[in-house]
Amino acid sequence: MANVTKKVSWSSRDEGTGESTPLVNGAGKDTARYSRQFSNSSILRRLSTVDLDDQSNEDTETSHLKEIPHNEKLLSSKYESLDYDNSENQLFLEEERRMSSLEFRMLEISRWVVCALIGILTGLVACFIDIAVEQLAGVKYNVVKHSIDTFTEVGGLSISLILWAALNAAIVVVGSIAVAFFEPAAAGSGIPQIKCYLNGVKIPHVVRLKTLVIKVFGVLSSVAGGLAVGKEGPMIHSGAVIAAGISQGRSTSLKRDFKIFEYFRRDTEKRDFVSAGAAAGVSAAFGAPVGGVLFSLEEGASFWNQMLTWRIFFASMVSTFTLNFFLGIYHGKVGDLSNPGLINFGRFENEAMVYNVYEIPVFIFMGVMGGVLGAIFNTLNYWLTIFRIRYIHRPCLQVMEAVLVAVVTATVSFAMIYFSNDCQPLGEDQAEYPLQLFCSDGEYNSMATAFFNTPEKSVRSLFHDPPGSFDPQTLGLFTLSYFLLAFWTYGLAVSAGLFIPSLLIGAAWGRLFGIFLAKMSNGSIWADPGKYALIGAAAQLGGIVRMTLSLTVIMVEATGNVTYGLPIMLVLMTAKIIGDYFVEGLYDIHIKLQSVPFLHWEAPATSHALTAREVMSSPVTCFSRLEKVGNIVDVLSNAAMNNNGFPVVSEFSASDEPGRLYGLILRSQLIVLLKHKVFVERAHSSLIQRKLQMKDFRDAYPRFPPIQSIHVSQDERECMMDLSEFMNPTPYTVPQETSLPRVFKLFRALGLRHLVVVDEENRVVGLVTRKDLARYHLGKHGLEEMQISQT
Amino acid sequence: MANVTKKVSWSSRDEGTGESTPLVNGAGKDTARYSRQFSNSSILRRLSTVDLDDQSNEDTETSHLKEIPHNEKLLSSKYESLDYDNSENQLFLEEERRMSSLEFRMLEISRWVVCALIGILTGLVACFIDIAVEQLAGVKYNVVKHSIDTFTEVGGLSISLILWAALNAAIVVVGSIAVAFFEPAAAGSGIPQIKCYLNGVKIPHVVRLKTLVIKVFGVLSSVAGGLAVGKEGPMIHSGAVIAAGISQGRSTSLKRDFKIFEYFRRDTEKRDFVSAGAAAGVSAAFGAPVGGVLFSLEEGASFWNQMLTWRIFFASMVSTFTLNFFLGIYHGKVGDLSNPGLINFGRFENEAMVYNVYEIPVFIFMGVMGGVLGAIFNTLNYWLTIFRIRYIHRPCLQVMEAVLVAVVTATVSFAMIYFSNDCQPLGEDQAEYPLQLFCSDGEYNSMATAFFNTPEKSVRSLFHDPPGSFDPQTLGLFTLSYFLLAFWTYGLAVSAGLFIPSLLIGAAWGRLFGIFLAKMSNGSIWADPGKYALIGAAAQLGGIVRMTLSLTVIMVEATGNVTYGLPIMLVLMTAKIIGDYFVEGLYDIHIKLQSVPFLHWEAPATSHALTAREVMSSPVTCFSRLEKVGNIVDVLSNAAMNNNGFPVVSEFSASDEPGRLYGLILRSQLIVLLKHKVFVERAHSSLIQRKLQMKDFRDAYPRFPPIQSIHVSQDERECMMDLSEFMNPTPYTVPQETSLPRVFKLFRALGLRHLVVVDEENRVVGLVTRKDLARYHLGKHGLEEMQISQT
Repeated sequence: MANVTKKVSWSSRDEGTGESTPLVNGAGKDTARYSRQFSNSSILRRLSTVDLDDQSNEDTETSHLKEIPHNEKLLSSKYESLDYDNSENQLFLEEERRMSSLEFRMLEISRWVVCALIGILTGLVACFIDIAVEQLAGVKYNVVKHSIDTFTEVGGLSISLILWAALNAAIVVVGSIAVAFFEPAAAGSGIPQIKCYLNGVKIPHVVRLKTLVIKVFGVLSSVAGGLAVGKEGPMIHSGAVIAAGISQGRSTSLKRDFKIFEYFRRDTEKRDFVSAGAAAGVSAAFGAPVGGVLFSLEEGASFWNQMLTWRIFFASMVSTFTLNFFLGIYHGKVGDLSNPGLINFGRFENEAMVYNVYEIPVFIFMGVMGGVLGAIFNTLNYWLTIFRIRYIHRPCLQVMEAVLVAVVTATVSFAMIYFSNDCQPLGEDQAEYPLQLFCSDGEYNSMATAFFNTPEKSVRSLFHDPPGSFDPQTLGLFTLSYFLLAFWTYGLAVSAGLFIPSLLIGAAWGRLFGIFLAKMSNGSIWADPGKYALIGAAAQLGGIVRMTLSLTVIMVEATGNVTYGLPIMLVLMTAKIIGDYFVEGLYDIHIKLQSVPFLHWEAPATSHALTAREVMSSPVTCFSRLEKVGNIVDVLSNAAMNNNGFPVVSEFSASDEPGRLYGLILRSQLIVLLKHKVFVERAHSSLIQRKLQMKDFRDAYPRFPPIQSIHVSQDERECMMDLSEFMNPTPYTVPQETSLPRVFKLFRALGLRHLVVVDEENRVVGLVTRKDLARYHLGKHGLEEMQISQT
Repeated sequence: MANVTKKVSWSSRDEGTGESTPLVNGAGKDTARYSRQFSNSSILRRLSTVDLDDQSNEDTETSHLKEIPHNEKLLSSKYESLDYDNSENQLFLEEERRMSSLEFRMLEISRWVVCALIGILTGLVACFIDIAVEQLAGVKYNVVKHSIDTFTEVGGLSISLILWAALNAAIVVVGSIAVAFFEPAAAGSGIPQIKCYLNGVKIPHVVRLKTLVIKVFGVLSSVAGGLAVGKEGPMIHSGAVIAAGISQGRSTSLKRDFKIFEYFRRDTEKRDFVSAGAAAGVSAAFGAPVGGVLFSLEEGASFWNQMLTWRIFFASMVSTFTLNFFLGIYHGKVGDLSNPGLINFGRFENEAMVYNVYEIPVFIFMGVMGGVLGAIFNTLNYWLTIFRIRYIHRPCLQVMEAVLVAVVTATVSFAMIYFSNDCQPLGEDQAEYPLQLFCSDGEYNSMATAFFNTPEKSVRSLFHDPPGSFDPQTLGLFTLSYFLLAFWTYGLAVSAGLFIPSLLIGAAWGRLFGIFLAKMSNGSIWADPGKYALIGAAAQLGGIVRMTLSLTVIMVEATGNVTYGLPIMLVLMTAKIIGDYFVEGLYDIHIKLQSVPFLHWEAPATSHALTAREVMSSPVTCFSRLEKVGNIVDVLSNAAMNNNGFPVVSEFSASDEPGRLYGLILRSQLIVLLKHKVFVERAHSSLIQRKLQMKDFRDAYPRFPPIQSIHVSQDERECMMDLSEFMNPTPYTVPQETSLPRVFKLFRALGLRHLVVVDEENRVVGLVTRKDLARYHLGKHGLEEMQISQT
């Protein structure tokens, strides 16, 4: 089971270098067993170095071990952190001090311009996806309808089935190959990855142009291929990639530098723009600009700030407006603004839709159902993911699984249409893709409609079709089969969202519930099953993803009816509470399975007994202000000690006495210094040092070269490097006695990457990084500590 | 001009003690002149002590100087800060460590219960206000209508006028007396005060029960008295007071302690609940729960946290639901949920209301108009406020002004009705209070309708009445007169909101603009002036208050139409940009006139040249861990040195060498220690100290007794006090070289009250407090520094 070579779905290569990173599969539940397996490799030694900072990517020695730890009790040290805290070194401060207030104003204006561009491009991408999916669905419908029409007469319906299945498989295989072989980071909805990014974890490849391209085509293929997926989640990811690209004014992949927005080339600014991009994506997906803002804030608001929020909102507004405007043109109604998002729930306005106070307990009960069903969904998907991690990790296997799912989906759909006898008269507001199939003339098969429509349209019909449009039996069968298909589909090597399938499942059982209630009360008051479909959809979605405030607002904006706020909120809250009792939200499960050091909002409540002293990594590798180049190169090259931040202290002595803190320097800064040979020759009495600019650091951002690529001669090793100009002279510090919640709060509120622990004389005694904080969590038996793995 | 005794409108007494605080009127523009005036008083000495921490309230020696500084270049040191940072001393940590995870869960549940209670009570208060205003307006209408009907025949219309004016004046005088004489903190909308509170400034009396009672009755009187005011702003204040009261589980005013929610008796928790209360208030006022959440976050989100936000949202939802439910019962439609807020813009749904892309430039132009008109409004009100501060500061004068405004308002209304000949046929959807007046039978006077309705209803008619309902001339006159009345009214000693008058002015000129456009284009495309009324209302409100994200969401929620999001946002943004070019927002003007040390989101962009060394107060009064009681009493009693936080250092020597930082202790903690005589007798070798509990500190919160009320005998003065158990051993620190923006960020992000500045050996060299940061701002000529006044 161990030592099998494979790729990880969304993190096989590292952002920093593009090199393959070794991945180790823990597979078991305990680290002891984990260590035994690799006892003769170099892993064991490194597992014991729990005092590692976020490890970077220069280790190649163990690259034959290609598995991932899916053990949720492990934290991987392969993820780097984003640095939301500016390194306020002399260079930076001098630059800031040179800038006039006019220049700051120009910067502010360019931030707005970037946000406008993010909004426009995100809207255009959404528009492209929407139109392309519609076109593809139309073509497919015509082919299949023609075949059914032809073959029904001659009794050869199996030919139609084969044709349908083959068509779906062919479409899906294209997207799946692209994802599995070329960019695994484009798999899935991308929401867990964006959550991690906004949380401050750098997930390799997530905001690359290539990922965007493959994501967009992947979504087209999986939606058009008839899988139980949506195109909304991927929009959020797309928006984030667009934002990361535009805000940097260059594309590293295309090797084009437009020499604009250079000021924004650092983690702080980039992360702000990425949050705007994610919001623009939500906005375009659901026509929910406010929901988008709240989504970004819920996921990453160590950085709430009025102006930033307003810019995020602007990007969201522009994005939904752009989508709306161009879809209006496409539909031939220039200037019509009725398509604010990819999905539109339709307007809930007529009298029958108004809910009543005494229905609220019913809604809450539906929330409970949503929580339970969501927990079942998540548990099944969790098991499936574990299975996939163990056995389906080669790209070709992944593609084969995707094809299998496509074929099964087509077969199930066909079987259900075949055995369903739910014929509905062709009404005035005719379904767009009516299939007569086995119905009499003038009627259409409602099950076929549900399967042939894009899922978005199916959701809408479940919400709005008049009572009686759907047969209870059809709905029941549909719920069951779609539930199974959806949980199987999520996690495949295709780009696909989870929102729409969840909404669809929920809408189906919600409507069923509504019909049941109407029957119970003899149809008197429970007038509209569509209302229950809406509540069911909210309950199911809430039970699966466990989002709260932002999801409420998204649902409210998508329905366009503010009065549904309270029931939707109650339902989402109930679903979350019930669901959390059993198992975590699906995104969190997938984040944990990737062993990402994700920081929650607060430290565990019962962690006041822990202090910085117990939490920190110690001893810390420090440098002195005037440091030997050879020393620096050795430290950076040492794979067992690949920290990313180094305190700069008064003197670096071999004695046990720790040095007094003078500053903090980052690995990336040292790399740039080494690359530019900013050395001071020991022989010379006058210290002549090549003057570096902020620009040199910005140009290298974000893909700093690995230390191995920098050649330092033996003579140069004897030179000295003066770090005082480049280090951050005022890093944040805490005393050793600081309680964990307090350390956590400081770290989280300021989006730090390194926090120096000092004693009462300001001497460095330790370093706290993300992993040191993320490993504590509240388990079933009180506070638990996760192990840190090397991979 | 100087030395005149008076009360301040919203800050005459101090929260801490209830004693009168001396207030000094700067009146002039420069501090030099300011100092000259009082050169023989004790003020000058104290003006020079710029190194003061937030001063507390024990100074009585200058209480004969009762004026306020209205100079916006001054910061008053009389405001205390809230401490959002927990003092994690041994007592606190021991308590936290004793608590099991079940107890933490129970705490979390009780937070939810408190939020539910806040929502319910806020909704009930809103409901009470709504019903009471409606009843009073009905009574008044009947009386006046009867008189007009009677006297029109006999030609004695002046009698009607006098009756009307007298009635209004009588109603207004009651509220005004209550506000001016009993609780000046209840004046105005309360939004500036709540902004300050959420920002972390303790405004005296703002969250007291008495303030709530007077506020509620004050609003009834001013709205029913026909003033140009709304009842929405006061709802936000009311919600905040309710939250502050409930969350503490006791009322200090009523001297009732319910012994519940004791854990919440500290600034951190209280401020969280107050933000929930403010959100609940917005929610009840506008039926805008999401807008409420965003309002709270915009104003005070140094503390964004997912669970907290979700609770705030819950309180908002419950509040609008409660209001809705009870108004439904009141209107005889149990279970009907169509009254989500005090004001309801009505639904913008019909075809004519849909805006088109090419209308957007027009909307932006309206935004410009709104910005300009808003700036004019604010400037006029600024001058008026200066005038009021100088000449109208006695309560009896304030009441007289309020009566005058009431009479003038009635007269103007009457005159306009009299000279207006805008008669409209009594249509099918009849106005609620039609006045025939000088119109022919079967018609009603539309001007009279506009003045006799509650302003909320007038806004709605401007938005929704069919084209032609209002005559352009009427609208023009109405705009002008209401504009003048509204700017005169804001700042009177009555409880009154600004939202509705602003909306009304904007809706009037917006509708006028719409009619004008319709005429220009021959009524072809510009079908509905109501749409323009909405945009005009947004523009005017935005131009006056300059709120951004939250206001957009509030407007969208109040219209119930999501598609209006983009134009409303564009309009608000334009109005803000244009308005900010001329003058600040009205709330900010009033905050500045009160010299409140308000912290904005970020330090001024060009302030990187400043470091903690320049910003901090120095030297700092420190204590040693074992400190003489006499020393402590002397320091606390010294009015010239009334800091609120004292670093605890290694040794307190007379030498210049600063001590090493061991902790931070607050004035309030020392007061409690002194009160409980937690002394160690020097003679005894064994240190026996009375054991204090967290409860002792909580019981004293928030009204800690002044040092003068604590008697310490001469013997006791010779005792020692061991501070180590009570001090916060891990205060946040920064090195001296830290740049101002970095200090600011730390301070703001964590909601600090004191930040200790240390040198490289961790010795205390200074202390940064709110005032040290708030005094830097970006003026016309670069970075400017405000003076700190003693009052």
